[in-house]
Formats: sequence, structure tokens, C-alpha cells
Amino acid sequence: MIRHPAFTVDPWSIIESELDLGILATTESLFALSNGHLGMRGNLDEGEPHGLPGTYLNSVYELRPLPYAEAGYGYPESGQTVVNVTNGKLIRLLVDAEPFDVRYGQLLSHRRELDLRAGVLRREVRWRSPSGAQVRVSSTRMVSLVERGVAAIHYEVEALEAPVRIVVQSELVANEALPPRPAEDPRVSAILEQPLVGEESLAWAGGGMLVHRVRRSGLLLAAAMEHGLDAPEGSEMSSECSADVARVTVISTLEPSKRLVLTKFLGYGWSAERSRPAIHDQARGMLQAARHTGWAGLLGAQREFLDKFWAGVDVEIDGDHEVQQAVRFSIFHVLQAGARAEGRPIAAKGLTGPGYDGHAFWDTEIYVLGLLGHSRPESVADALRWRHSTLPLARDRARQLGFSGAAFPWRTINGEECSAYWPAGTAAFHIGADIAYAVERYVRATGDQKFEEEIGLELLVETARLWHSIGHRHDGTFRIDGVTGPDEYSAVADNNVYTNLMAQLNLAVAAQACARHPDKAAALGVLDGETASWLDAARDMYIPFDQDLGVHPQAEGFTDHEVWDFARTHAGQYPLMLHFPYFDLYRKQVVKQADLVLAMYLRGDMFTTEQMVRNFDYYERITVRDSSLSACVQAVVAAETGHLELAYDYVGESSLLDLADLEHDTRDGLHVAALAGAWVALVEGLGGVRVEESRLVLRPRLPDTLRGLRFRLLYRGQRLQVEVRAGEARYRLLDGDGLSVWHYDTEVPLKSGMDERREIPPMELRTAPAQPMGRAPRSRRRRHRG
Amino acid sequence: MIRHPAFTVDPWSIIESELDLGILATTESLFALSNGHLGMRGNLDEGEPHGLPGTYLNSVYELRPLPYAEAGYGYPESGQTVVNVTNGKLIRLLVDAEPFDVRYGQLLSHRRELDLRAGVLRREVRWRSPSGAQVRVSSTRMVSLVERGVAAIHYEVEALEAPVRIVVQSELVANEALPPRPAEDPRVSAILEQPLVGEESLAWAGGGMLVHRVRRSGLLLAAAMEHGLDAPEGSEMSSECSADVARVTVISTLEPSKRLVLTKFLGYGWSAERSRPAIHDQARGMLQAARHTGWAGLLGAQREFLDKFWAGVDVEIDGDHEVQQAVRFSIFHVLQAGARAEGRPIAAKGLTGPGYDGHAFWDTEIYVLGLLGHSRPESVADALRWRHSTLPLARDRARQLGFSGAAFPWRTINGEECSAYWPAGTAAFHIGADIAYAVERYVRATGDQKFEEEIGLELLVETARLWHSIGHRHDGTFRIDGVTGPDEYSAVADNNVYTNLMAQLNLAVAAQACARHPDKAAALGVLDGETASWLDAARDMYIPFDQDLGVHPQAEGFTDHEVWDFARTHAGQYPLMLHFPYFDLYRKQVVKQADLVLAMYLRGDMFTTEQMVRNFDYYERITVRDSSLSACVQAVVAAETGHLELAYDYVGESSLLDLADLEHDTRDGLHVAALAGAWVALVEGLGGVRVEESRLVLRPRLPDTLRGLRFRLLYRGQRLQVEVRAGEARYRLLDGDGLSVWHYDTEVPLKSGMDERREIPPMELRTAPAQPMGRAPRSRRRRHRG
Repeated sequence: MIRHPAFTVDPWSIIESELDLGILATTESLFALSNGHLGMRGNLDEGEPHGLPGTYLNSVYELRPLPYAEAGYGYPESGQTVVNVTNGKLIRLLVDAEPFDVRYGQLLSHRRELDLRAGVLRREVRWRSPSGAQVRVSSTRMVSLVERGVAAIHYEVEALEAPVRIVVQSELVANEALPPRPAEDPRVSAILEQPLVGEESLAWAGGGMLVHRVRRSGLLLAAAMEHGLDAPEGSEMSSECSADVARVTVISTLEPSKRLVLTKFLGYGWSAERSRPAIHDQARGMLQAARHTGWAGLLGAQREFLDKFWAGVDVEIDGDHEVQQAVRFSIFHVLQAGARAEGRPIAAKGLTGPGYDGHAFWDTEIYVLGLLGHSRPESVADALRWRHSTLPLARDRARQLGFSGAAFPWRTINGEECSAYWPAGTAAFHIGADIAYAVERYVRATGDQKFEEEIGLELLVETARLWHSIGHRHDGTFRIDGVTGPDEYSAVADNNVYTNLMAQLNLAVAAQACARHPDKAAALGVLDGETASWLDAARDMYIPFDQDLGVHPQAEGFTDHEVWDFARTHAGQYPLMLHFPYFDLYRKQVVKQADLVLAMYLRGDMFTTEQMVRNFDYYERITVRDSSLSACVQAVVAAETGHLELAYDYVGESSLLDLADLEHDTRDGLHVAALAGAWVALVEGLGGVRVEESRLVLRPRLPDTLRGLRFRLLYRGQRLQVEVRAGEARYRLLDGDGLSVWHYDTEVPLKSGMDERREIPPMELRTAPAQPMGRAPRSRRRRHRG
Repeated sequence: MIRHPAFTVDPWSIIESELDLGILATTESLFALSNGHLGMRGNLDEGEPHGLPGTYLNSVYELRPLPYAEAGYGYPESGQTVVNVTNGKLIRLLVDAEPFDVRYGQLLSHRRELDLRAGVLRREVRWRSPSGAQVRVSSTRMVSLVERGVAAIHYEVEALEAPVRIVVQSELVANEALPPRPAEDPRVSAILEQPLVGEESLAWAGGGMLVHRVRRSGLLLAAAMEHGLDAPEGSEMSSECSADVARVTVISTLEPSKRLVLTKFLGYGWSAERSRPAIHDQARGMLQAARHTGWAGLLGAQREFLDKFWAGVDVEIDGDHEVQQAVRFSIFHVLQAGARAEGRPIAAKGLTGPGYDGHAFWDTEIYVLGLLGHSRPESVADALRWRHSTLPLARDRARQLGFSGAAFPWRTINGEECSAYWPAGTAAFHIGADIAYAVERYVRATGDQKFEEEIGLELLVETARLWHSIGHRHDGTFRIDGVTGPDEYSAVADNNVYTNLMAQLNLAVAAQACARHPDKAAALGVLDGETASWLDAARDMYIPFDQDLGVHPQAEGFTDHEVWDFARTHAGQYPLMLHFPYFDLYRKQVVKQADLVLAMYLRGDMFTTEQMVRNFDYYERITVRDSSLSACVQAVVAAETGHLELAYDYVGESSLLDLADLEHDTRDGLHVAALAGAWVALVEGLGGVRVEESRLVLRPRLPDTLRGLRFRLLYRGQRLQVEVRAGEARYRLLDGDGLSVWHYDTEVPLKSGMDERREIPPMELRTAPAQPMGRAPRSRRRRHRG
């Protein structure tokens, strides 16, 4: 997107200065507003044209049967899919009886701006109607980060040259017609037509409300609106409603340069448990509170929330405006996805679109919670509390599959498995270890022992139990056969290195946590012998290694397989999964996304430097990055192995993934984990940030392309700023009682407000390995020097 | 079934002397009549009660969409499923205005007999109506083996004690309502309601006809009937028809001991290409020819056909009446499945039921064509001609998957892949080598060089090309990674020994056949370098071997996997696939059906005796026989490795599979490959018959349980009889110019009509290995001695 002439680069905003209807759906995703509970795509106020209308409430889903031409034991029978709930964004406008629609008449100017500090979407348009009337329409839309059920829109119409008759219709609309979706791409979610059943419809002076039930899942939801109006005398306001529409209409005549200002307050509520009257009252109550706060009050609170957030997490880049903008855009959207999810999942697309059916996957734990852990740790605790709340379902699933402990779903909204293709779903048991990893990382970074005891321990114990029952002993080793690792171009292999290393960590940290909380462990039925058996399994975990090549095979036997014929694969055949059968992808050496390289990022302690270098070199040549989850991990390991320019190229790719629509599917929603990956690439890659045991370690290194990198992060409740320049790092504790960090191998004690400078040790730079033909990342060095 | 008190053992018949409605569907399969083109389940004449009504025409199918909750490249979008065509078996009867229905009134006696020499199903019933009228109803039903579109029924009603008023309604009925089927079992076919669309409906004096089109596949089919009537004076006959029914009604009054005899002739025709009038004429023409031949003529021709067949294939067992009956039953049904398929597939269930959607699989080539090759070789040539006719589709499929040559479908009716689960479908590429094996075996056993040149060579070449493109070279070996072997409790593994050995043979025999037919090979575009590369691949084929255990792993790494916990698996959890996820089955050592053991049966030349013994012992302990294809192969290898009593137990299991309904699914149709397996177990197992290069080798050996075994077989157009007694084998050439066979390692020249006796060398008998708990075959020795 950023390369589109309609976009200009701004460090704190995404600005669109021309409307291109061909990329409308993509911009709706980019301009989406959300707080993790309520999400609105960046649809035009007047509803049409649209790419894909979308308003979402976290975990409001419909059930859909999962069909199998050939069924099998343990296949989930029903899936969940996110539904487009009641649209409260809609404000239609008639100008001298002609509908305001950018496809007709003449769009004299257009500007949209997503303001990353204000947390609003602004739009300003000048339009001439087919009959010649001219108006300026401006709107500001926000989804409150403070009041999670509240959104608001400030909508203004001004007559420009001559008096115009204005009709504004502000609506709530349920069951919007959605455009048909191409069925070929398995990543695109199913369509569900008319999923909402009207339960209550109400209009009052200046407002209205709709209560609906989702047809099969039975969830109840309510949307309510109230309006403030500032309009010339003689204006009229009226309200009406039917089952699927509530409408407030304002009629006014505007003299030139006169304005009509409508402020729309929205309140949303839903529940699986509570009654219709309770939901009704909830939405209405939130609405009244929002109106009481008022537009200015909401705006102020939003800014305050964001100022505090940015003060703890901002990343500044000296030498690359594009990436500067992109990384802030990325962090902002990760915040939007996770800020107020509170006991609900953080989905792969956040609340920005219906992609992946609105499901949450393992990458929330591995990618998203890393960034949130250093910027908004309470959201990490919330996300893991959600996993914890689904433990009964995960235990049932483990039992159904014949295992002990808990088997978390590969993809889900409500905690039940929705994956209809088990080799790339259920078999990817690493999800359990990923959750355990996130628990351990959160506790290390916050020291939150209360969380560990109340929530974390049970997650660690139940996932450790799963591993112990999935693996088996053979020839003195502990093996995990027939599972699927992160790379989706392999499946159902023995001893996937990523899985085994993550399971090893899971088993070990579960045992250690039990030792820290013996009473709680006993309450969970953990016996001494059990933790000892976990430690034995961890100690004996089998990690295959190819002695001939001197590299780790991604899984046992992987390096014996044929290497994919990249020379005969042309650009139009990517992503490969849409042009080649899984059969052929699985049995050849071709990697969709970092797998062994991901293991090196997360379990770097288990690899020698030489192994890191050889492995990275080997996998780089066969990794095609058909997944958005890959580039950021490659950035980290490239940085660690002395390929700083390549690392920075991957920083570019991961941070521009959605802004430049690199995967051509941003229309269906943003890639939240990849957005977090932009931060991972910069802060954990170039910044070299790691939490090792209870140490915050930094091994910063800067490519020549950049003049400087400055970032802030939270660690154990204190705010740290790190500034990296050529050959030097400067550490500053922004607030807190004092903290030691490790700069490479040396301890750096920090006191609040004082700078500590340290030299960056010289790094052995290596010649970057070649990627598969045509799959090299775009060079940022060339961009800057060219 | 045979253990049911209603069944008595007879060497040449299956006799049911009591009607048990609880097993009605099963008996309908057992009593099915077919010629491979037209099949009729053994439904009662009056249509109800029924287990499952069924009339089938080979390759008359409906299309059904194959649904995928998560789609993927190369997944077939549409499947084929056999349809129940127009039912011509139906003859309803009213006795004094009360419908003849065995559920009402009183069944005074009941007898059904499937006569394996006459090739008819006889039924004789005495019935008292609810109002007390008594009749004897007897019917004889045949599906002609001589006229493949023709069936006939001889139907007789006799008044027993008092005069009765009789109404006989003889019908053609399309779109019969089928009972709902349980959806849980993936092996049960889909229901298709009302698949036939009426095109023409016609009635004439004494006859009628229905022409229908299958709704989505568009195939046209016609069924026509004519009747002969022998009834007391005053009887009336009338005809009528509507879209889905044609009916001939006879009204008569029978005095005691007087009879009404109705002879129903049926003609069936279908086509994918020809017009409605052409199909109409075809069915009508066949019908007239049948009427011309007459009932007695049809019966006589049927007997003549079967006498000739049995003279070449009969198996006699001295010492086990049950198996004697069962093996003839098995051979008869294999004949019925394959006799007149002529250019169409031989389905897994033949034409006896809708199981597996009426699809043909690889086991036709490996199991069924072996028996037919030594009894009715023209049917083998036909079956392979059908495969040859689907080569264009198989080439397209290979191209779609990215390979050279031809990729035959895992399951199909019309030649297009219908498998919706690729790990156990498309990935089982051994189907190609199985076809090649069948070609090679047919040519060896018949010497039919014309067939090899015209049909066989292209099949060999295209399958060899497939292997060459699927495999790859690594470390001086040729590997085949990521494929599925015969065992359906494993999938997508590297270097499956069965697959690699069969591919090796395929590559080698393709190259040899090209050398025999250089002109035809050149016409197929085969270059010298190409055959040389096949021979190289065959020479370097990688066959994994576990040095520590001294056994072949079924596939690479198999013996490193956890052994299934048989001790904790109870009887109700078999078949395992209905109670455990594929995930867990695939990654553990548990074998559904002979895989490595099947390799030892078909490629015995590639194993030392010690390997055979150790491998059999190893796999016996982990093979659960949840597939009907396993016991016969285990019988063969048990016999070869000195476990003669165990071999005979498996003979018992394989021959009784359907008669005793061992898999509890005979209701859906017979297991044709397993029926052939009964012959395989006896003749290739105990009889030790093999064709090695161009030698017919026999290594007979008899368990103590049996006194003798005598069998006949065709080889290169000559008929051989082999009689095995304790310590001795007697060979006789029944007709032909003379033939040498090999008795173990010595040549035995045979001349027509003369006996040659040879001593059977003593065999090292071994202690039989244990099967998994509860999975031992039923002991036949104990049965005999107990």
C-alpha cells in the first residue's frame, strides 16, 4: 500500500489522499479500528461502495457444520466462524435528494488518516453531486480503548457554494449483504448469510437499538445508538426501526459554509449466558455513560491511553521513513487487537476482517504476546487467562484423542477445535508448548508469581502431561513421532526439532514451576514422580542432527528428501499450496515458514554458533515465505548470524506486509502476528533483546543501512529506553527503582534517568545465503542507495 | 453366517432354512446374483421386508460433490457413487386380497438356496395368510452369465388347502426408497435419493419398459420385462405404467394344488453416449432374444458356462466342510463380479451392494485378477483393458499432481479420482505398480504377447514414468518419499518397502517389455535412455532394513515408533479407525493389514528365508486385521515360513469373512478381494503356486488339520490338477499339449491325462508368533478336535 501513489509516508499516521476503489477492501482492513473487544473495518461512512462490510465483537460467532467427504474419528463436526454483527458505522447522506456516493458525481478531494496517537480514523471529502451541489463531508471515527463497548463518530456536513437540502440517515443495520467470496483459497472464511435473528428493535428520540440472536450459536448481542446534533434552525430529527434496521434521520437545509454536525455514540454488548433484557440494559447503559463522557471526553481519554502506551513501546528508526511508519502502524494494530480482549482470544486477524473465520492460532502466543509482554503485560495475562478458561475443553479433547493433560485447539474462537484438516491442525501439537512458552516468558518478564500460581501453573502442568503421553521412550531417548511443526509445507513427521525443543522446555519449566508452588501442584494432582518423569523426558529429548551436512533436519529424515525444484517454479505459482498438492510439498525440502529457524530464535540456548550459522544458511535456501509468520523470524536469526543487511530486508518485509499488501489478502483482515513480527524483527532481531532466565539481555547490532534505532520496553514494571548507533548502545531507565540489564555478556546496572553507554562488540559479518529463485526479500539497501 | 442355525453346510450350495429378518441385509449380499455387468441383491421377490434393495449396472453412477471444510490443491471436486437402478426383481403377490409379506400371517416353511453350479437363487416358501389362506411360493432367479444384459425369474404360486384368489404384480420400479444409513462409518456409501429422472415409460401386453437418466451424471439406462404365463383358465393379465413403475398384473383363482407359473424375462441396457431410442432398442432386443432362448434355454446355458468354469478352478478340501463350502462360495462370487465386466471396473463389492460407493480399488489387481488369471484369463484382460481405457484421465491426473506418466485413481468408477482424503488415497501411489504387476502376471500366465503389445506395454510404460518422476536420487539410492503403502494405519511415509519393491518391479518389467516390443515402445515415445534410467532406478531402489532388530521396517523409521498399546485396547475398540484418530494410528506400530508381509508374498524373491521368518514374526505381533485384505496374505506367508496351522486358521478366516460376516458389514456388499483371498490362501498359500519368470512353481504343504487339498488351475491355456496329501503331491495335466511345472526345485514334465507324484520335502515347522491380544484368528484345529 505504501507504494501506492495515494499513500504518503508519515511517522504517526497512515494517510490516503486519493480514493482507489480497486483497493477499497484492503484499505478497510488497514483503517480498521478496534480495541480487541469491538472492531470496525474502515468502511466508508455511507456504507457503499464497500469492499467488505465488517463490524465484529470478539467471540460473537456462528456455528457451521464441517463437512467431510470421508469422515474420521475425532474430526470436529462443527466449526465457529466470526459474524459481521450489527453495523453502527453507517451514516448515509442525501444531498438535494441525491445519495452521496463517491461512484457518482465528482469526488473533488479525498483524504483519510489513521492517527496512531489519537487513535481515530479521520476522513475529509469534498464532493459535487451529479446535479452540481457541493458539500464537504468530514468524519472522525473512534473505537474506545477505554470503554470497550463504546464507539463514536463525529460527522460533519458543510454546504460549499450554494444552499443544499441535506438528509442524514444514521443507522444500525443487521444482516448486511456480504459480497460473494472466492471459494478456492482455503484461507478465506466461509460466508454465512443472514446469521442474525431479530429479538428486539427499538427507536426513541435521537436513538435506537437492535437486539439479535446468532442463529445457531444462540449468542445474544445488542447495539444501541444515541446522537447529538448541532444543525441550523429548522432542522428535523426523527427515529424509526424495523427488525434489522434502526434509523435516526436528520433533515436540514444548509446555507453555503454552514455545517451540520452529528455526533453518534454507539454501545455494544453481547453474552452467551445473560438474558435479552440484561444485554439490552448493558448496551444502553454503556451508551448513556459514553454520552455523558461526551465526544471531547472520549477523544481525550483515547489520547491519554495511547500516550501512555507509546511511552512504553515506541520504536524510532533513523534512516528509513517507510519502516518508521510501518512499525508504528504495526504496533498500533497489535494494541488494537489485544488491548481489551479480556478473557477472549486474540484472533489471527484481530477484529479487522473475517479471514481465517476469525480464529485464534498458536502465533498469538509466540508472536503477539511477546510484543504485548513488553508493552502491555496485563493483556498477556488476559490472553493466557482465556486459554486457561478453555482448559476443560482442552482436557476433553486430549481424552478424545487418547492422551493425558490438555490438547489445545489448533484454531478456535470458543476453545473447541475447528480444524477440519488434521495433518495441519490437530497434529500440530506444538500449540501446547507455545502456550507454555508464553506463560514462562510472561512470568520471567513481569515476575508475576501470583499469575504463575493461579493461572500459569495449571497450563504448564496440563501441557507437560500432554507431551509426556504423546512422546515415548526408544533407545534411551524420548521421541515425539508423527506430529506437525510450524512449517505448513511439512506435516506428520517424526521428531520435529521445533516441537521437541519446545516440548522439552515445557516439560522442564512445568517441573520447575511445580517446585515453586508445591501446594498448588499437589492440588493439581502432580506427584513427585510425575515431575521427575517430565525432567527425564526433557533430558532425553531426541534432537535429530544430520552429521553429513552438519545441520539439524527440520524433522527426522527431512534432509534425505528431494529439494523442491525452485528453478522450475515460476512467480505465479506462489503461494505453492494453491498450485501444488500437499502430497508433493510435504515430501520435499521446501519450507513455507521458519520452523527450524524459529526453533533457533526461541531456543537459541540449544544451538552452537556454528550450528546456527550452518542451519540458517541451509534453510534460507529452501524457505519460500508463503506464510506471513516467516520474515520476522528470519530477520532475528539473520541478525544473530551476522547477516545484518538481510535481517534488515526482512524487517522491511515483515513491517510492510499489510501496508504493502505483500500477500494479496490484506482485504480479509490484517495479519496481527506478522504485525507483531515487525517489532520482533527490530527489537529482538536488531535490538537483540532476550529474557534469559531472569536476565534482560541485549545484543544490539545495526546494519549499515540504518543510522540509528531507538526503542522502549517494559520489563518487570520499569521502562527502559535503548538507543543503538553504529558501534554503540545507550541504555536509559526512564522510570523505576533501578534495574540491571546485560549488554552482551556484561552487566549494566541502570538507575532511573541516567544514561549508560556501551560499545557494541564487532560482529563477524557473513555473505548472505541465497533464497530460492525469485523469493529474496526486497533489498532495503538498494532502495536507499538506488 | 455359516454358524447361524438357519444355515447348513453344503459343498455346492448356500442354503438358508429359516428366515431371520435381523440378518436380512446380510443375506441379500450373500444371495446376490451378478455377471459383472448386471447385479441383483438377494432381495425377497415381493420387495418387502428388505435390508437394502439393490439392482446395479456396472458403471451406472451418479456424481456427488465432495465437500471439504478446508479445501486444497488437487482435491477431487466430484465423486461417483453407484446408484440403485430400476428394480426388475419385484413380484408382489396378493392372496385373497392380503399382501404376501413374511412379517404377517405365518411363515410355515422357508428355504433359500444359492446353487453354485446352476448359478441360480432358489426360494421356496409356504405361507398362511392372516385370514388363513395357504400358499406355496417358489421362485428361481438368475442373472445370465451368457447374456450379460439378461436376467430371468421363474415364479410359481400354488394353493395348498383351499381355493385362493391370487393377484401377482410383476414390476419394474425406479427410485426405490432406500433406508437411511449410519453416517459414522466412512466405509458406507452416501445416500442418493431419487437419482433417476424418467425419460420414457411404456407398457404392452405382458411387458413394459422404463428408460431413465441419472440426474447429474446424465447416463441413460433402460430396463424392460416380458412375461410368460402358465395359469388356470380364466386368469387375466394386464399392463400399465407410470414414470417410475411398469406393472404386469395377473389375476387368477387357484384351486388346491393348482399352480400359477409366471416367467419373467428382464433386459437391461445403458450408455453414456448413445441416444434414448438406441438404449430403448438395446434393452428390448436383449429381452426378445432372452424370450426366444426361453427359461430352460437360459438355465441350460448358465449350467454349461459354470460347468466349464468349475472344471478349471475347483478347489476340494478333505477334512473341512465349512471351508469347502466357503471357498466355492468365494470363487463363485469372484466369477460373478468379474465374468462380464468387459471394459468396466471390477468393484470392491462387485455388484452386490453399495459399499465403498461402488468403487474399484487396487485390490482388484492384486487379489481378484490372480484368481481370475488362473480360471478366466479373458476377464483379466478385460479388467486391464478398462484400466487402459482410463489412461487419458490418469495422465491428466499425473500432470495435475506435477508428475510424468499416469497416476491411476485410488478409488473410482469412471477413472477419475474419487478419494477425498489424500493421505489414504492419492498418496497410495502403489496402485500404479499394482496394475503393472497384474499386467506382468497375466502375460506370464497366459503368454499373451498381443495383449502385452497392445495394452500392457502402455500401462507398464506410463506407470514406470510415474515412478521415475515421483522418486529421487539421494546418496546413490533411489528413494520414494512421502507415500502411503497398503496398510491404512500408516500414511505418508518414506520408502515404504512394499511400494519401493513394487515400483522396482514396475520399472524393470517396463524396460524389459519395451525391449520385447521396440516399435511399440518407440511409438509411445520411449527412448533408450529412458528405459536405462528406469533400470538404474530399479537397481538402486532403497529398501530400508533395521539392522538392530534384523527386520525390514514397513517404511523408513517405522520400527523406531511406539508399539500400539494392545493390552489397553479392548475388543469393542476394533476396528481401531472407528475409535482412535488417524493421528495416533499413523505414528505408532500397529498394522491394519499386511503391508511388509504383502511385499513378501508378491516379491518373495527379494527376501532371504531368515528375513521372511523374522519379518513375519515381527509383523504378526502388531497386525490387527481390521481390513478384509489381510488374513489371506498372512496365510500365504505363514505357510511359507513354516506356520502351517496358523496359515490354515487364516484360510478359515479369509474364506468365512462374508459367510460368517466377520467384519459386520457384509450387509453393504461382499468383499470381493477377500473372497479371492480365500483362493489365494489355499492355492498360493498351502498349494504354494507361483509363476516365477515363466515357470509355474508349486511348493505345496499341508497342515495336519487337513487330510487333503485338490485344486485345478489354468496355465498357458492348459488345465492342471494338483492333489496334495500328507508328504505327497500328485500333478495331472487335464488337457493340453504338455507342460512342465516345478515341484519345489525340480522340474516335473506333464503329459495330458498322466499323474506325476512327488514327495513333499519336510518343512521346518516353527512356533507361531502371537497376534495382538484378542486378535488371533479362530483356530480351525481346535474346532475340529474340540
